Amino acid sequence: MTDHVDTERDHPASGDLSGDEFRRYGREIVDWIADYLDRPERYPVLSRVRPGQVRAGLPDRPPDVGEGMDRVLQDFEDIVLPGITHWNHPAFFAYFAISGSAPGIMGEMLAAALNVNGMLWRTSPAVTEIEATVLDWLRQMIGLSGAFDGIMYDTASISTLVAIAAAREVTGLEIRQRGMAGRPELSALCLYCSEQAHSSVEKAAIALGIGQDGVRKIGTDEAFRMDVDELRRAISRDIDAGVRPFCVVAAAGTTSTTSVDPIADIAGVCEDHGLWLHIDAAYAGVAAILPEKRWVLDGVDRADSLVVNPHKWLFTPIECSCFYSRRLGAVRDAFSLVPEYLRTTEGGEVRNLMDYGPQLGHRFRGLKLWFVMRAYGRAGLEARIREHIRLAQLFTAWVEQAPAWELMAPALFSTVCFRVHPNGLPQDRLDALNREIMDAVNASGEAYLSHTVLHGAFVLRLSIGNIRTQQRHVERAWELLQRAAHVQMEESEESREDTDERSKSKDRAARLPSPS
Amino acid sequence: MTDHVDTERDHPASGDLSGDEFRRYGREIVDWIADYLDRPERYPVLSRVRPGQVRAGLPDRPPDVGEGMDRVLQDFEDIVLPGITHWNHPAFFAYFAISGSAPGIMGEMLAAALNVNGMLWRTSPAVTEIEATVLDWLRQMIGLSGAFDGIMYDTASISTLVAIAAAREVTGLEIRQRGMAGRPELSALCLYCSEQAHSSVEKAAIALGIGQDGVRKIGTDEAFRMDVDELRRAISRDIDAGVRPFCVVAAAGTTSTTSVDPIADIAGVCEDHGLWLHIDAAYAGVAAILPEKRWVLDGVDRADSLVVNPHKWLFTPIECSCFYSRRLGAVRDAFSLVPEYLRTTEGGEVRNLMDYGPQLGHRFRGLKLWFVMRAYGRAGLEARIREHIRLAQLFTAWVEQAPAWELMAPALFSTVCFRVHPNGLPQDRLDALNREIMDAVNASGEAYLSHTVLHGAFVLRLSIGNIRTQQRHVERAWELLQRAAHVQMEESEESREDTDERSKSKDRAARLPSPS
Repeated sequence: MTDHVDTERDHPASGDLSGDEFRRYGREIVDWIADYLDRPERYPVLSRVRPGQVRAGLPDRPPDVGEGMDRVLQDFEDIVLPGITHWNHPAFFAYFAISGSAPGIMGEMLAAALNVNGMLWRTSPAVTEIEATVLDWLRQMIGLSGAFDGIMYDTASISTLVAIAAAREVTGLEIRQRGMAGRPELSALCLYCSEQAHSSVEKAAIALGIGQDGVRKIGTDEAFRMDVDELRRAISRDIDAGVRPFCVVAAAGTTSTTSVDPIADIAGVCEDHGLWLHIDAAYAGVAAILPEKRWVLDGVDRADSLVVNPHKWLFTPIECSCFYSRRLGAVRDAFSLVPEYLRTTEGGEVRNLMDYGPQLGHRFRGLKLWFVMRAYGRAGLEARIREHIRLAQLFTAWVEQAPAWELMAPALFSTVCFRVHPNGLPQDRLDALNREIMDAVNASGEAYLSHTVLHGAFVLRLSIGNIRTQQRHVERAWELLQRAAHVQMEESEESREDTDERSKSKDRAARLPSPS
Repeated sequence: MTDHVDTERDHPASGDLSGDEFRRYGREIVDWIADYLDRPERYPVLSRVRPGQVRAGLPDRPPDVGEGMDRVLQDFEDIVLPGITHWNHPAFFAYFAISGSAPGIMGEMLAAALNVNGMLWRTSPAVTEIEATVLDWLRQMIGLSGAFDGIMYDTASISTLVAIAAAREVTGLEIRQRGMAGRPELSALCLYCSEQAHSSVEKAAIALGIGQDGVRKIGTDEAFRMDVDELRRAISRDIDAGVRPFCVVAAAGTTSTTSVDPIADIAGVCEDHGLWLHIDAAYAGVAAILPEKRWVLDGVDRADSLVVNPHKWLFTPIECSCFYSRRLGAVRDAFSLVPEYLRTTEGGEVRNLMDYGPQLGHRFRGLKLWFVMRAYGRAGLEARIREHIRLAQLFTAWVEQAPAWELMAPALFSTVCFRVHPNGLPQDRLDALNREIMDAVNASGEAYLSHTVLHGAFVLRLSIGNIRTQQRHVERAWELLQRAAHVQMEESEESREDTDERSKSKDRAARLPSPS
């Protein structure tokens, strides 16, 4: 990189840092980050602050004059950090465990410094072209056909909203121009997803004016995959009722269980009825990098669009959502709007990113993904994703082998749904017990899990996606879960003995296996 | 900050950096940023790459194995940087000149390292509470009533979309639930903004299913302010025609000219008709930090919502858009959707940010603004904004004093609309001449301006917002503009003499003033 140039500012003033000050505090921050990333375990995973505590630590009024960076950084440590739930902690197993790798953070540092808005090609050609490059690299890595062209958004929520907006536009109903209200000739519109689909599908339907009533949540099979027969029946029923189907959103990796809808079959239905098929592969799509998991995207080449989020399981700091479509022109048709002050002379030879979505501004998100892909290479990314899946399989085996525990859904990737299920406990007590176990483990500060509800039952969820997670962290989580189960069941036992004096074996918990 | 802890990874592997490597490359990047920010003038403002050039410099296929950071950083300099249009350059005068300050960049570095998703309070309480704190600080600084509560989004486009979605919801038409299509009882909906409004208003109307036909672009007065009489007439006409007005978007600082709509009068109209009033103050809202510019938000306390973007003129790296509303509950009603896997037990005592918009994920955007507000303080921010306005007034005076140049709109803040207008030149030639001048200045690499069209005329726009811009940069831009005008007019003259041999005074250009 360029040598140090010692240039004095003409008008240094409070708040502005000289080059030397930037170096000094910047290095301090880099050192802090290095320490932090080496050992996030020094902090409890789940923040322990009380509601309002962070805010109470700060003045009610903004500072009148600037403060030194020393003080700001000290407050960052003293006030902000206790309020952080550490997604970087290797025992963060909740939701989808995301993690930004060191190369990704460095890409983000440079993007923050450049601070360009890539709304137009000319406002920084590298934003458009690095983004196009890494989108194409990722496309190749997950084995997607070259017919798919991509664009980056902030979140999968926006990617899915854009897909459904494009689907709405290709109906030919001129909704972009004429809107939807006050048109008596317009049928109600509806889209289909499974009852396991991500909430962003319904949120997009709300935003786009389809309405929650226009979202058909199709039932799923025993493995939480969309029931294609039910989908067919629902579409027929809607058509018969004069409602216009226009879109199906299928998941390659649902949020609760990471189940994969039968995409090829669903594509067949969509082809029969001329419906836009969007695939939500935000989490599990990157698993297709592995030859042995390539099947997750089987049939996707027949879809109209899909979303894969490198900020989920590809070690890229948030936000970075990759949207692909075989019909990116339809996205452009749905959104492009060029005011005079943004008109340029490059014309059709360049792509202006502002034409492809609801947002005008476009951050340089491609840079961090470019850093990640280059630093790890295909082999490095494969190895990490494969290791996460191996750890999840290990955990799955422990659950399956433990008599009092049960698996609640097939564990296809790196997320496991399970619960403790001692004999004879009624469902309501079972749900409470599992929640108590989750709360106890989360309160330990050593691991953080979340839950879901499947077929009405409270289910624990362990998701492995952090680049720093090792086998020992998963072992420790299993140990904590068993201990918590032991304690909760004993307490439960005692409380029942106290209340109704029934005599029961107290060694049920002893049946739980010891950690491997 | 914490001392260096030398922890070895259990399984170091390609791509992952050890703590020492992170320090080494991190410091290299910090040094590079320090040099870059000290002298962005070393680069041409507007990138000179040809379309496709950046991408052509990179392999078509992703790397199979990881590469060293040295190589990645070298390619960043050799391939990415030439494709950057330098928004950090002090002579970046195009669009709205945004700039991330050093403290803002540092906040972003830490946010990238923490990489938390603040979708729920518990997934990092500090995200919710730092965001709430700085939103309230900014609210106080711009003199907004305490009745306004805020939330941060990525862009003003999303802030405005959220506002219009809330406006749509409070109509009581149950659009969230029932959608808009297939409801013969539903009137067409329409919203109002001026013909000078930002394109994001129309984009939001497209996305939300209002349609472009549902956007009434109200005419403006000689200073490009919404004509309130015309607004009243348009509303009456729509009501008479059975169309339902539901929202007005007024601007406190339009995009082309930074004109300020008569907000108090518009608020009166909205109150009369029960319409949601949203104020787009994305750029000029921060000017209200200055006592002498507080008027820009006059009447806003009667609005339902407004947006102010610290990533525009408050030295905060993109993206950071502050949305305020007196009716944040309506935003929540429009968007909240809590799937089981995101249900928490904190209940009403905390705010979960995912409830307030189309996106589930929520980046830690408050941190960078907190760094900026603390490092500069109110006084530091005031001084910089005031200086930008002073520089714009200086430039305005030069334009007004130069016989061949004219101001094309009042310059209220830091953006000036102007053109060269030599005597006797017909309108079509005038537009071409000004475009040639702009292109010539932009090709110099020393300054970058953009344009707009006002009353059909091509107009040059000089926007001052960069924290590094000093008087000499504005002087140089004026010098470049005059030279370009001189050259273009001479060429134009010669070409006319060549073609029709008319004899004309060749010293018209000499009338242009010399740079101050």
